[in-house]
Amino acid sequence: MSEEKEHIQFELTDELISEVELLVSKYEDKALTTLLNEFHYADIAEILDELNLEDAVYVIKLLDSELTSDIITELDEDTREKILENLSAQEIAEEVEELDTDDAADIIAELPQERQAEVISRIEDDEHREEITELLNYDDDTAGSLMAKELVKVYETWTVAGCLRRIRGQAKEVTRVHSIYVVNKEEKLIGRLSLKDLIVAKSEQKIADISKENVDFVNVADDVEDVAKVMAKYDLEAIPVVDDSQTLLGRITIDDIVDVLKEEAEKDYQMAAGITGDVEADDSILELTRARLPWLFLGLVGGVGAFIIMEGFQKAFDTYKVLFFFTPLIAAMAGNVGVQSSAIIVQGLANDDVKGSVNNRLIKEMLLAALNGVILAVFLFIFVWVWEQDFQTALAISLSLIAVIIVAGLIGTFIPLFLDKRGIDPAIATGPFITTSNDILGILLYFWIAKLILGI
Amino acid sequence: MSEEKEHIQFELTDELISEVELLVSKYEDKALTTLLNEFHYADIAEILDELNLEDAVYVIKLLDSELTSDIITELDEDTREKILENLSAQEIAEEVEELDTDDAADIIAELPQERQAEVISRIEDDEHREEITELLNYDDDTAGSLMAKELVKVYETWTVAGCLRRIRGQAKEVTRVHSIYVVNKEEKLIGRLSLKDLIVAKSEQKIADISKENVDFVNVADDVEDVAKVMAKYDLEAIPVVDDSQTLLGRITIDDIVDVLKEEAEKDYQMAAGITGDVEADDSILELTRARLPWLFLGLVGGVGAFIIMEGFQKAFDTYKVLFFFTPLIAAMAGNVGVQSSAIIVQGLANDDVKGSVNNRLIKEMLLAALNGVILAVFLFIFVWVWEQDFQTALAISLSLIAVIIVAGLIGTFIPLFLDKRGIDPAIATGPFITTSNDILGILLYFWIAKLILGI
Repeated sequence: MSEEKEHIQFELTDELISEVELLVSKYEDKALTTLLNEFHYADIAEILDELNLEDAVYVIKLLDSELTSDIITELDEDTREKILENLSAQEIAEEVEELDTDDAADIIAELPQERQAEVISRIEDDEHREEITELLNYDDDTAGSLMAKELVKVYETWTVAGCLRRIRGQAKEVTRVHSIYVVNKEEKLIGRLSLKDLIVAKSEQKIADISKENVDFVNVADDVEDVAKVMAKYDLEAIPVVDDSQTLLGRITIDDIVDVLKEEAEKDYQMAAGITGDVEADDSILELTRARLPWLFLGLVGGVGAFIIMEGFQKAFDTYKVLFFFTPLIAAMAGNVGVQSSAIIVQGLANDDVKGSVNNRLIKEMLLAALNGVILAVFLFIFVWVWEQDFQTALAISLSLIAVIIVAGLIGTFIPLFLDKRGIDPAIATGPFITTSNDILGILLYFWIAKLILGI
Repeated sequence: MSEEKEHIQFELTDELISEVELLVSKYEDKALTTLLNEFHYADIAEILDELNLEDAVYVIKLLDSELTSDIITELDEDTREKILENLSAQEIAEEVEELDTDDAADIIAELPQERQAEVISRIEDDEHREEITELLNYDDDTAGSLMAKELVKVYETWTVAGCLRRIRGQAKEVTRVHSIYVVNKEEKLIGRLSLKDLIVAKSEQKIADISKENVDFVNVADDVEDVAKVMAKYDLEAIPVVDDSQTLLGRITIDDIVDVLKEEAEKDYQMAAGITGDVEADDSILELTRARLPWLFLGLVGGVGAFIIMEGFQKAFDTYKVLFFFTPLIAAMAGNVGVQSSAIIVQGLANDDVKGSVNNRLIKEMLLAALNGVILAVFLFIFVWVWEQDFQTALAISLSLIAVIIVAGLIGTFIPLFLDKRGIDPAIATGPFITTSNDILGILLYFWIAKLILGI
């Protein structure tokens, strides 16, 4: 079994890539095929992502289309786009022919508009072509864009024996049979059963008698994030998709949902870090700049705002220089508290965990921020008092810190709740957005309170 | 089908909770049972999370243990802990009896040490008790801690007909049959087949002839994050778990992996926001303080560091007050750039996307930061020049900004790479950690370069 062991622990080494490159350069087709056939298609895709375009296209054209179609679905989007540019419409159609409708539609959707029709017209299987065309019509981010047409469907009037006989045909086309969907003669979804139920049942029983009526389903227009939530919450491995009149259209499987969840998590993580547009470490400098510069520019504007505020207070500077030396501390604390509060709210909203009134939420955050603020202020007070030997200044700075932390916490809590109520994705409210607004407000508040206490 | 529609769109309303509370207070058991039986167990768990403890325990004791056992697995950890405290060892054992071994072991593992043995001893089914005891021995975060003992296993020597007959018995115990695992007479995993394969095959065929030999599996000691990566990459819905001698021990299903991925994403997101310890918006103020205060304290120390640096430069800058007014801007930019770079690297490392040498990575980040820095510096230069009418100062501040951004980018790139090489989770390097260190370093660098350019 050592062979499979290695398969799991597949590691993309420089040696392996060199070996593939060498075989390609020497046109050793047989050795190359033998070598690559040892690997899972997802692993071969990783290898191709590392090859230069010419070599990658060579490998795709060399291997069997049953394998290469799967490899193509697993490639990085950039690599896939380039490879498909180097294949003819006929060649792409042959790849697509091997794929399930959902994967086929995804690949075709990535092609330039004018090539899409050409590729579709060259798909030989009429049913496959029509189904793919249907899937291409659904909007991104809807259940329709994720579903596959392949499923096992039985009519309520069939018997178990007849059913087993007939689904043998259907099942061959379906990679994995999660559930068998039961429809009535109008093709409306009325129940489900598992292969297990079918095997355990007696062969003369009617499908209607053994099928479960409480079948979960989603509407073809539902948002993919909602579909993901439903499937995760109810531990579903596949869910049927219906239209408004309950007609069974397709099914969504959990592996697609795993991808949705991963992408969603990455997007939120990047948003919190001030990066837009789903970039990767290996993207070009230009793509990375486009993703990062807008948020940095926001920070710049915030910094200029802080500058203008500080300049407005500069008359106080001559006697209380030390106040100015604490502005980075105040800005940092305001930013950190704001990011913490907003992150907890954003995550709570995503998980539907945030219940109760906005007021209660704000009161809780105020108490929490006050507690944190007092603890931190005590330390800061002692430091300033000992270092500067000035009780008055130490008091002014520490009390300001408490106020700044409370206000920062409230803003961090309120803004995502407000955005969510308005139907805007609250995730944009974390990271640089909250940091910048809290920086400015924190510094303004800090000088204002300090001025009040010091009587300047 | 409107009933199922509502099931999908289950919404936890105040009215529903009040209704349940009213029924509990009037001891209307029948109406309560009828009402709750309409909902999925995951939905009932959400309702119980909102009730007071006494009411929740009442509902648990009222409903059938087949249903309540599932409800208990879906409760919030805090609620579950409190409810289990109010159940006797016998009652908990009865709940556990209904669950699959993995869920049963998870619940028992959460009990206080002394109750665990008591509950286990009261499980009536010997096999179930032994299997749960076995699962409790595996370390957290290993494949063993996620796996269930329930699976469908066949011997290579069986025929399809005999196999179908025998697995009818096994399959009844297994909630969902993903794959059938083929073992030899030493119980070692040697292949797999799907129910579909079995149905499609002829009844006199031998299992050995129709089973697939390239079965993916994981070792019982493998890290759960690695298991999640393998299952997501190869689109697996279940994976068998073996020990070092390839003996089949159990299986892990994709729904557990979905939970692992979600938890992992939440942990990373919180870490980037400066929150430790997996808290939720509804946790107590004390728990939230414990999660947030350490990072805020780090920020405080950083702020004090910045203060000391600025005080050190104060004599030099009596004539250049304006420099001090830009420190929040410099600190913010250093922090933002650092968080961006580190987030991209941390995410790349998590996805095994970061290939190539550390040097290349640093050179790329330097170019990227330089590009961003120059663009931002041009805007800042124009602003300062126009506002202050001082070319020299504008130049000093802008050039410092470029240097600060480049260094911040390099630190943000280097630290996670360094931590990862050392085997430390690089995710701790984002958020407050990188912000604070970049704040201090940025301000130091800024004053140092400004001093140089202004010739003070």
